[in-house]
Amino acid sequence: MRLNHDFRDLSLELGVQLHAEGSCLVKLGRTHVLCSARLEDRVPSWMKGQGRGWITAEYGMLPGSTHTRTDREAAKGKQQGRTVEIQRLIGRSLRQAVDLAVLGERQLTLDCDVLNADGGTRCAAITGAWVALVLALRGAGLESALLRQIAALSVGFVETESPTQRRGLVLDLEYEEDHRAAVDANLVAARGLQGGALEIVEFQSTGEGRSFTREEGLALLDLGLNGCERLMAAQREALG
Amino acid sequence: MRLNHDFRDLSLELGVQLHAEGSCLVKLGRTHVLCSARLEDRVPSWMKGQGRGWITAEYGMLPGSTHTRTDREAAKGKQQGRTVEIQRLIGRSLRQAVDLAVLGERQLTLDCDVLNADGGTRCAAITGAWVALVLALRGAGLESALLRQIAALSVGFVETESPTQRRGLVLDLEYEEDHRAAVDANLVAARGLQGGALEIVEFQSTGEGRSFTREEGLALLDLGLNGCERLMAAQREALG
Amino acid sequence: MRLNHDFRDLSLELGVQLHAEGSCLVKLGRTHVLCSARLEDRVPSWMKGQGRGWITAEYGMLPGSTHTRTDREAAKGKQQGRTVEIQRLIGRSLRQAVDLAVLGERQLTLDCDVLNADGGTRCAAITGAWVALVLALRGAGLESALLRQIAALSVGFVETESPTQRRGLVLDLEYEEDHRAAVDANLVAARGLQGGALEIVEFQSTGEGRSFTREEGLALLDLGLNGCERLMAAQREALG
Amino acid sequence: MRLNHDFRDLSLELGVQLHAEGSCLVKLGRTHVLCSARLEDRVPSWMKGQGRGWITAEYGMLPGSTHTRTDREAAKGKQQGRTVEIQRLIGRSLRQAVDLAVLGERQLTLDCDVLNADGGTRCAAITGAWVALVLALRGAGLESALLRQIAALSVGFVETESPTQRRGLVLDLEYEEDHRAAVDANLVAARGLQGGALEIVEFQSTGEGRSFTREEGLALLDLGLNGCERLMAAQREALG
Amino acid sequence: MRLNHDFRDLSLELGVQLHAEGSCLVKLGRTHVLCSARLEDRVPSWMKGQGRGWITAEYGMLPGSTHTRTDREAAKGKQQGRTVEIQRLIGRSLRQAVDLAVLGERQLTLDCDVLNADGGTRCAAITGAWVALVLALRGAGLESALLRQIAALSVGFVETESPTQRRGLVLDLEYEEDHRAAVDANLVAARGLQGGALEIVEFQSTGEGRSFTREEGLALLDLGLNGCERLMAAQREALG
Amino acid sequence: MRLNHDFRDLSLELGVQLHAEGSCLVKLGRTHVLCSARLEDRVPSWMKGQGRGWITAEYGMLPGSTHTRTDREAAKGKQQGRTVEIQRLIGRSLRQAVDLAVLGERQLTLDCDVLNADGGTRCAAITGAWVALVLALRGAGLESALLRQIAALSVGFVETESPTQRRGLVLDLEYEEDHRAAVDANLVAARGLQGGALEIVEFQSTGEGRSFTREEGLALLDLGLNGCERLMAAQREALG
Repeated sequence: MRLNHDFRDLSLELGVQLHAEGSCLVKLGRTHVLCSARLEDRVPSWMKGQGRGWITAEYGMLPGSTHTRTDREAAKGKQQGRTVEIQRLIGRSLRQAVDLAVLGERQLTLDCDVLNADGGTRCAAITGAWVALVLALRGAGLESALLRQIAALSVGFVETESPTQRRGLVLDLEYEEDHRAAVDANLVAARGLQGGALEIVEFQSTGEGRSFTREEGLALLDLGLNGCERLMAAQREALG
Repeated sequence: MRLNHDFRDLSLELGVQLHAEGSCLVKLGRTHVLCSARLEDRVPSWMKGQGRGWITAEYGMLPGSTHTRTDREAAKGKQQGRTVEIQRLIGRSLRQAVDLAVLGERQLTLDCDVLNADGGTRCAAITGAWVALVLALRGAGLESALLRQIAALSVGFVETESPTQRRGLVLDLEYEEDHRAAVDANLVAARGLQGGALEIVEFQSTGEGRSFTREEGLALLDLGLNGCERLMAAQREALG
Repeated sequence: MRLNHDFRDLSLELGVQLHAEGSCLVKLGRTHVLCSARLEDRVPSWMKGQGRGWITAEYGMLPGSTHTRTDREAAKGKQQGRTVEIQRLIGRSLRQAVDLAVLGERQLTLDCDVLNADGGTRCAAITGAWVALVLALRGAGLESALLRQIAALSVGFVETESPTQRRGLVLDLEYEEDHRAAVDANLVAARGLQGGALEIVEFQSTGEGRSFTREEGLALLDLGLNGCERLMAAQREALG
Repeated sequence: MRLNHDFRDLSLELGVQLHAEGSCLVKLGRTHVLCSARLEDRVPSWMKGQGRGWITAEYGMLPGSTHTRTDREAAKGKQQGRTVEIQRLIGRSLRQAVDLAVLGERQLTLDCDVLNADGGTRCAAITGAWVALVLALRGAGLESALLRQIAALSVGFVETESPTQRRGLVLDLEYEEDHRAAVDANLVAARGLQGGALEIVEFQSTGEGRSFTREEGLALLDLGLNGCERLMAAQREALG
Repeated sequence: MRLNHDFRDLSLELGVQLHAEGSCLVKLGRTHVLCSARLEDRVPSWMKGQGRGWITAEYGMLPGSTHTRTDREAAKGKQQGRTVEIQRLIGRSLRQAVDLAVLGERQLTLDCDVLNADGGTRCAAITGAWVALVLALRGAGLESALLRQIAALSVGFVETESPTQRRGLVLDLEYEEDHRAAVDANLVAARGLQGGALEIVEFQSTGEGRSFTREEGLALLDLGLNGCERLMAAQREALG
Repeated sequence: MRLNHDFRDLSLELGVQLHAEGSCLVKLGRTHVLCSARLEDRVPSWMKGQGRGWITAEYGMLPGSTHTRTDREAAKGKQQGRTVEIQRLIGRSLRQAVDLAVLGERQLTLDCDVLNADGGTRCAAITGAWVALVLALRGAGLESALLRQIAALSVGFVETESPTQRRGLVLDLEYEEDHRAAVDANLVAARGLQGGALEIVEFQSTGEGRSFTREEGLALLDLGLNGCERLMAAQREALG
């Protein structure tokens, strides 16, 4: 049984998409997300002429990635609310990684497609998208635009009677744990490239079946920060 | 000048929509949101036969509510990502107010339409929707399904040079303050009907131009909890 | 009981939308419509370079405005046929109010959102939109572009057995009367700013359960003109 | 030159759509509309169990029917406002032709597709759709459900300097006349099958560049009624 | 009974759409398709500045054209997969008819609308669209851009027990034959204007209930080529 | 340099989607397609009660799979014509693999998502989808429903001056070859499980810049059949 403060086995495979300026297949246990970073010499029309760049993200789940088949959003003609919420979070988070003025009038689009879903796909997507983003900047000689390292993990309070499952305050929830979580949070953490203490980019905590105290909120935050510290080491190692 | 820990002038006008089972026009300074609660004797198909109810929310901005005209989403044929994100937050928050099993196979839909926007519309919507929800339950003799009081406020760190504007850690941000906020958070707080300490339903904190420390995160949370405490008193007073 | 040739209690509240160039909340009995007029320094692409302005309208019903909840068109991704028909009528009608050459290359958008619906919403919208339009022109120093006063009322033949309800030829139908009307008409009337006789901008008469004679058509028209005469006095009074 | 009170050369060709329960290709000068009436043993879900039928209409213009190519609405994924307005008018008008209780739980769908457009397509569509509807009822042995004869024509006040063109109050406007019309009206007329005076089903009159007096409105109506009287004779002759 | 190698009675009526640069109503037995060719002095944005033209096609079925009413794609807001597939085939095929460099920066749009459907509508559309295209080029003095003659027919292996129906390898399948076909193919053939052997533009063969041998494929192809040879004579005769 | 009659290096990786009933990642050179087969105990409503199953397919390209980023169809709200055409081809082809009566009232959905695109994605998708389909049937104990083996390859005539590139009649075109192909064909081949000669399920041949003779068509077909013969051996080996 995995310990409460452990995240799942992590693998970061670089360059799996041959045409993308940067790409990373992140596997966190049975959650697999393919992240690509595409760099284009244009910005959205509302940003033109400001000399600054833009970063945006899109997220999707392959129909075969889930327990029962997920409808293909392209066929339905509409992205679900959950999809929209997640891709906005990824975009906001990764914009903190880059100095948009140094990037210049370029757009980075981060596409995160879930090949296998077992909880924590949005956090895995952020973690992998940062790696893809770094590769894309490197390839274009734009590494000086990189400002911060970004990684994300989920934390929560899980309630279960089973002696063979994790309970209480746990890091990096699998689908089954997430399903039983009374409180669920996603932490996106950042650190400057020169090091220094880990800081927070986003902390979203939600009571699913109950509300929670400020002390519980603080415990979630601290476990998440601790986990992201270790996750960032793995990102740096993968990038060499 | 408003003090850092004050929220704006609040008015809660009940029953403004004549056909709705419950309605409340909430005015928080120059932010005005019309909230209605509609009660129907049906649940979504995926919930049928479970004997439980459902609560969902929809959010919109009137085209005339903003500085420059906002496109009508019905005419564009699509809700914006921001809209989707907000209405999911309202729905999740208000589901914590009610015991869905006691509600029975009924659906409550909370419609929150912004008549005037000056920052904090999602928090005002949650605060007003709770009042509309209570009225709808009362009208239907379902007050026993009410579990918790819910209210929401924004908090943030605002950076400005102006001596006539609030700066630093402030409660209930106006549009201009929100625009200059380096860190921005929304707190949805809850308290059981029997009283007791205020707890957290959602705490969403976002670094907009920088990341922030755990101590800053805690300061945001504490100011938000303090503000919601006072906001809840106003809700109870409005409901008599 | 209201007399057959009376319209309902009327209230015109100005400036209720703080950012809109002009706005008016019109209440005609239990029918409440919020009208805003937005003025922009651009015209649709097909009008560019002609030196003339354009006026268009959009209409919507808040989900909480009706007896049972009306689906939000933005969520369905499509405006209903009825909505499209009404907003085209409002646009055509208000274009008669203004000299588009004097307006210059500007667009006025009239948004009419129904807060409470009890029959006659399209006529109330036209009546209120004219007030909002005048305010917007005034604020921009463009009052010289104003050409005509515009107001609208419904008329119909109502069939009922009830001694306590209006029957026969009646002005300004409530929802229940409209429901029982065998013939239903909407009259949009105009008068030049220098006075003179009331004229017709649109007269749309429809047999709902039967056809009607030319004499009945004429009676509908005359009652409508008489009502609009009095309605226009109220508009002028509201504008001071 | 055609006289002011004449409609264009009329041809009504029956049965041109081989599978449709009823069909009629109506040619009014250079305006050609293909109308079909399809009869199905079902009603919309909101009408089920009432023992009554329903009539609805759809309208479209082939891309090749107009001076410059009209975009295909199916390719754009959206019907224009004008299309929606017209098909609602056709549906309302034809519902007056039939006793829906005698029709029973059946739906008649009237499809009106414009092959060539030269003004007056909505009126031609109504005139042809009535013929198609009668054929469909005959074929199904449901002629007893027929209640009234329906026909429609446009009328207007045309302003022109040209001595070779019609001016003033004219019947059945061609595209060029419609373009120069200051006032434009569509009349849908009805007569019971036992004869009697012609009555009005819809009278929609619109000032395009000016408003108009009640006397002008009456003159439009009278010319339209006179024209429809003669048009109905042609419909009856075509049906044998 | 029609012989296996005969196509149905063919009629090509020219100029039926009065505004279109070219038009042709093709009738192949009970399959009737109205084809128009519209010529515009613009190309899609991705082709601008190349000095070359473009040819595209759109296809639709009138709701009244089929055994039971076909839903109007404009009303559903979406073209079916079958529609998309067919209009891509028509466009690809007709692009082989024209030297796009000689056409210059112009777009030809071929609209093919089925008035009556009895099998083979896509082939009839291609055959008629070529005639409409020639008329449009002639009218614009662009006949020098014409490169090849194009025509299309279906072929298939039909299985039936009935002694009064065609069976085995047959040309130009009616709906009932197509329904019973085990193998179904569409051949689009071309010939240079100077004559020479017939060549293939598209050959699409599909096993519907079984697979088929290369010899069967060859037999389908040869019968199709033979039929197209004769079909092209009829096209030339119609164009005079 | 690859020989004209060789297909690219092939790899078939089984079970890469953990929740899917069957899945296969097919790599044909630099073209990588992830195929999943989902089995559900339901059929489309139009097939209910017939005791037969159904097979359908959906296709998509990840935004990061192409030279320049491909727009996400889910975000645009619409599948492209090319996508629709391809997924219809995949569905038709794979329906030939299975006896739908033996399958019973179940639906198999084949999702084919392109991770890397370098030409021939639709053929690779068909080849991989068959492997995924077999795995899904095996897992459900439904292997008796399997009727035929299915595989697909592209063939074409490529024109180039380069001495280092393949020219003339070539098998399995890469993107660059496809781009220069004057004639392009896709062959879907089938063989019964008991062996016997290879047969044709679909043969789609298209002249891109010129038409082609029946002899050229036959040469394309024969090379394709030869290639599929060898491809099928690889499929069988992968399945053990």
